[in-house]
Amino acid sequence: MESALPIGVFDSGLGGLTAVNEIRKILPNEDIIYLGDTARVPYGTRSRETILEYAEEDLGFLKSRGVKYVIAACGTVSSVMMSEGGFRDRLCNGVIEPSAAAACKITKNRRIGVIATGTSIKSGSYEKAIKKALPGAEVISKACPMFVPLVENGYIQRDCIPAVKIAEEYLLPLKDAGIDTLILGCTHYPLISGIISDILGEEVSLISSGAEAVRYAKKVLEENGLLNKKSSPGELRLYSTDSAELFEENACRFIDIKDVKVEQIRLEE
Amino acid sequence: MESALPIGVFDSGLGGLTAVNEIRKILPNEDIIYLGDTARVPYGTRSRETILEYAEEDLGFLKSRGVKYVIAACGTVSSVMMSEGGFRDRLCNGVIEPSAAAACKITKNRRIGVIATGTSIKSGSYEKAIKKALPGAEVISKACPMFVPLVENGYIQRDCIPAVKIAEEYLLPLKDAGIDTLILGCTHYPLISGIISDILGEEVSLISSGAEAVRYAKKVLEENGLLNKKSSPGELRLYSTDSAELFEENACRFIDIKDVKVEQIRLEE
Repeated sequence: MESALPIGVFDSGLGGLTAVNEIRKILPNEDIIYLGDTARVPYGTRSRETILEYAEEDLGFLKSRGVKYVIAACGTVSSVMMSEGGFRDRLCNGVIEPSAAAACKITKNRRIGVIATGTSIKSGSYEKAIKKALPGAEVISKACPMFVPLVENGYIQRDCIPAVKIAEEYLLPLKDAGIDTLILGCTHYPLISGIISDILGEEVSLISSGAEAVRYAKKVLEENGLLNKKSSPGELRLYSTDSAELFEENACRFIDIKDVKVEQIRLEE
Repeated sequence: MESALPIGVFDSGLGGLTAVNEIRKILPNEDIIYLGDTARVPYGTRSRETILEYAEEDLGFLKSRGVKYVIAACGTVSSVMMSEGGFRDRLCNGVIEPSAAAACKITKNRRIGVIATGTSIKSGSYEKAIKKALPGAEVISKACPMFVPLVENGYIQRDCIPAVKIAEEYLLPLKDAGIDTLILGCTHYPLISGIISDILGEEVSLISSGAEAVRYAKKVLEENGLLNKKSSPGELRLYSTDSAELFEENACRFIDIKDVKVEQIRLEE
């Protein structure tokens, strides 16, 4: 039964675990295989050619494990893939179109902000997807290269001065531009949504790209009769390309993984 | 003539260029081949096994290009190699012993600080090298995982609040411990030596690990009759594992490379 197979999720590192949390919430009976390419994280500062190569290897691994669906829970991979014409497989989605669609539904003044990694912003993919979904929308984009290292090193408290100062530098121009909706275009960013909200004010709606990607996947799975029919809780398996111990040490910031074993794997080239 | 061959230098990314600057200053007639593994930078947050694998590939590339000597201008690689018993090749050195020796020579109160990446500090290599060179020395070590992203994103000005705040968090405990000498154990750190000095005060001597590695290499080359005898200025060739364009964009922060071509290569596995 294809519907009994797990959902595959991958990211450059740990950020995609925010999408795993979302699957566990809205699709609690689904088994999940997660791959974090921690031996080569971060992707967001690399060239598009390198990212395409890495993404292909990540996808190849998940497919070799027999998944029924793949979520690319990485803003950078999703952006680069979209600018290449999108994922060829219909049972696979990234974060761009789902979060663009959500932002276009929510915005009232049609001024939408996008924050993401340097490579994501450079690809123009978010902007293109928003303008396709809502012609006439104004998109204000900002690359935020320091957010991933800040989150990965635990600078996520609302009163953390370095994180707040750097966030102000990135976000005040978006606030001044009058956005009413902001796409958190990298799956690390939900961990600092408190800091982001404090700067932009409650009137600006934040869209989590990972959460939207999962909602989109749920819809496609439903339409294709692929939702898992079991009633027991889904299982989670975690794979990393750098050491399992290191993954376990750092992952607790993103997800509760006690009793979940992490296995280190080597990607085929 | 072996002495006419270039010196090879490698690092995970751009930090090792601070060592290249030093070679150009004190060995101006030497040709240099530099490899930055920008497709997999940073190394300092990865496991020792992964770093050993990457370092072997970096070394292999330089050797395949016919270099007479190799400087591992990367604190993380040097630390991990040292804890494995050091580089097998006598015409190769890292940054640990040279900077430990320099610190032991300079310190008056025998209280030496070391700042480096998480993996470097975890290896204990700096501490071991210092205590070997100066029994009775007290070593106060501190991992500074945010310094590489700060430097790579240009947060290097003395009045940059996020950089100063994070640096204070890392360095005030070392100041309180009464160190009179600090090893900058990662080749990125010289770019924020101004911020570091402002916090520690001028009475604390800063040791640049990359510069010490180059001085050490000069001595070995001299002793082995391997200094280049030509009188014309040496040539610099730059190789990166991610795109050449991206390397050129970012390298200008570390080194003047106008008129130097960067070539992207793929490492053998």
